[in-house]
Amino acid sequence: MTGMVVVLVEPQLPANVGAAARAMLTMGLSELRIVDPEGRLDPERHPEDVAQARARASGAVEVFDRARICRDLPAALADCAWAVGTSARSRRFDWPLLSPREAAQRMVGLAGTQQVAAVFGRERSGLSNAELDLCQAHLHIPANPDYSSLNLAAAVQVVCYELRMASLIATHGQGAAPEPGEALATGEQMEGLFRHFEDVMIASEFLDPEQPKQLMRRVRRLFNRAGLEDTEIHLLRGMLKAFDPRNRRY
Amino acid sequence: MTGMVVVLVEPQLPANVGAAARAMLTMGLSELRIVDPEGRLDPERHPEDVAQARARASGAVEVFDRARICRDLPAALADCAWAVGTSARSRRFDWPLLSPREAAQRMVGLAGTQQVAAVFGRERSGLSNAELDLCQAHLHIPANPDYSSLNLAAAVQVVCYELRMASLIATHGQGAAPEPGEALATGEQMEGLFRHFEDVMIASEFLDPEQPKQLMRRVRRLFNRAGLEDTEIHLLRGMLKAFDPRNRRY
Repeated sequence: MTGMVVVLVEPQLPANVGAAARAMLTMGLSELRIVDPEGRLDPERHPEDVAQARARASGAVEVFDRARICRDLPAALADCAWAVGTSARSRRFDWPLLSPREAAQRMVGLAGTQQVAAVFGRERSGLSNAELDLCQAHLHIPANPDYSSLNLAAAVQVVCYELRMASLIATHGQGAAPEPGEALATGEQMEGLFRHFEDVMIASEFLDPEQPKQLMRRVRRLFNRAGLEDTEIHLLRGMLKAFDPRNRRY
Repeated sequence: MTGMVVVLVEPQLPANVGAAARAMLTMGLSELRIVDPEGRLDPERHPEDVAQARARASGAVEVFDRARICRDLPAALADCAWAVGTSARSRRFDWPLLSPREAAQRMVGLAGTQQVAAVFGRERSGLSNAELDLCQAHLHIPANPDYSSLNLAAAVQVVCYELRMASLIATHGQGAAPEPGEALATGEQMEGLFRHFEDVMIASEFLDPEQPKQLMRRVRRLFNRAGLEDTEIHLLRGMLKAFDPRNRRY
């Protein structure tokens, strides 16, 4: 399935990375990105860890070998128009929260024309709030509340299984395929917009960088929820330029 | 979830049994049966294997410890009214072949009154024909035909996930939990916001009232799509006030 990537953020156990690659390929996904700022999967520095990951990848070792290593999550999502971040909490603020099935339908609907991503956090601590804020929606696997500790590869398996089911259903005509719509902005465009907002908000003294409160998070939340289109990014940035007090001619 | 059992037939790797127990409990299943005629999981004869299985079971070690050991599949299914056998082949004779989703719906429907079972075969060779014949239906996980090699615990995870989803849907109706969310803004608040936008856009010369083009329609479309909350109206209006060149003190 093209246009869909899986992002693992700082996985701690190499075996889990291999098992996740295998889980992906069994469901037809092959593009893996790993946020690994400390080079834990660098074959020169940690050859044994890499060997372990490759062993667990089994017949999907190519998925692991071709994985793109990224320094942080914004880099991993730079070309992605829509990303869903997995969250162990069933509710966090009120960011759009989807089941794996809903998220998969959305992703398959968008993936025909744009790059979409499913993001998984660290085994112990998951994704940080700042990382979750980079995603357009959150995904919660409705696990047993008394024991919700899915292994990382197991979570990848469940989400990739739903992606495959959604893709098969979309192809074979069962159920309505989501509307294509216009091109959504990429992660890079969204980040550029948020930086621009922050900059003009500071210049116009709406945002005090010494006391930012939750302002930027609230802005992110609002515009992520809307699912901005490419042309809307241009509209908003043009508006911000006009609002910028430093550009005033009078 | 009661009335549902998972049967593993002659699992070869103890770690897979532990991982399967964990996968089950994350989805709320706790009754495991293991067809183990050779006593590979007998703690007296193979203490190291058992220790490995228990370690991988992690917080679900009780599911493993309480698993019923059976000499063959008929013994494991003796009290089951309906059993589905997983098959790597997408078709075998014309036994009823179900997707995990269909099988789960059937199992959840029956489990209220009767014992039902999902049966998984050996890692290498799956279930024998004779074993598949003991099941009322067959289940095929629609894997990538070019690489369909799901790990045993991954297959258990997918099927148990579908059982949990089917159970939640049966209890709570279609879809995930509805989003409670915060109070949405009223139409009056939205109109006030749009007037404010238009006013500041004109004041900052972003919008030319002589040639408005489609600017306001595009702003409306974007913010209507987001479904603004009450608090977000205040955020945006505060921002517009700060951006308004007429309010500038310098």
